[in-house]
Amino acid sequence: MQTIRTKPLAAAAFAPFGDVLEAAGTPDALINAGLCARFHDRARLDFGPGGRAGLSIFNARARALPYRLELLERHPLGSQAFIPMTAAPFLVIVAPDAGGTPGSPRAFLAAPGQAINLLRGIWHGVLTPLATPGLFAVIDRIGPGANLEEFALPHAVTVISD
Amino acid sequence: MQTIRTKPLAAAAFAPFGDVLEAAGTPDALINAGLCARFHDRARLDFGPGGRAGLSIFNARARALPYRLELLERHPLGSQAFIPMTAAPFLVIVAPDAGGTPGSPRAFLAAPGQAINLLRGIWHGVLTPLATPGLFAVIDRIGPGANLEEFALPHAVTVISD
Repeated sequence: MQTIRTKPLAAAAFAPFGDVLEAAGTPDALINAGLCARFHDRARLDFGPGGRAGLSIFNARARALPYRLELLERHPLGSQAFIPMTAAPFLVIVAPDAGGTPGSPRAFLAAPGQAINLLRGIWHGVLTPLATPGLFAVIDRIGPGANLEEFALPHAVTVISD
Repeated sequence: MQTIRTKPLAAAAFAPFGDVLEAAGTPDALINAGLCARFHDRARLDFGPGGRAGLSIFNARARALPYRLELLERHPLGSQAFIPMTAAPFLVIVAPDAGGTPGSPRAFLAAPGQAINLLRGIWHGVLTPLATPGLFAVIDRIGPGANLEEFALPHAVTVISD
């Protein structure tokens, strides 16, 4: 069975797949009399033709490493942002596209204080918190059209800690 | 000096001001082979004419109760959602409009697992986390136009714990 190791979630490595949303580096503005740092407009949100932004809450069962990856999915019509509502790390699995099916998957470990925005059409694993409650706010596309493609891997992949 | 007491944040009492976003009640769907509950499209997002959704990260200094409220603000062109990225409670202060200036303010205490979406034009206090880090994802309007009105209270209000 193929085994992949998690890497720390970092903006540059993740950029082809999406955005890392975090209070890192120099803020774009100090607001509220200097008491709040604003890291402004950091996600490449995309709700496609005929869509609008929606905000949903997901409560997902916690998983553990090693994690058995059997399915990837993608949303052809819009981006999808996952914002953890706790300070627990979570697992992020993505894959490049290889002619309409997923290429080799990659795994990232999001640290406390990191959220992600997956670009439209990026293959990714389902939401995999590593602690309970697995509570996330999700900003994704609301609108007509078929916005979910699933791909069952012919061979499961094991994700282990780096 | 006027003193107001916090109340627990509850959807019904907060509805005139905005949405409480939480994994409460019956989920709208079970996804990911039943491992994830989706509470779907729970915020009255509104990015007004000529605006679009933006996702920013705010890192605000923690405050404590009693809290001295001296300023309210509102965004005439769009809604503003605050999603805590930790499980710490935070303070939410809102006020009805009274002829173009804020009426009597009200204070709510958001519990772990609760986020909010303020409706367009609702008077509110600045972001007031009660623990460090005061880390929030904010979904609000990006676009041209004057989207901030501030109102300095003629007399400060003290917010105390219920």
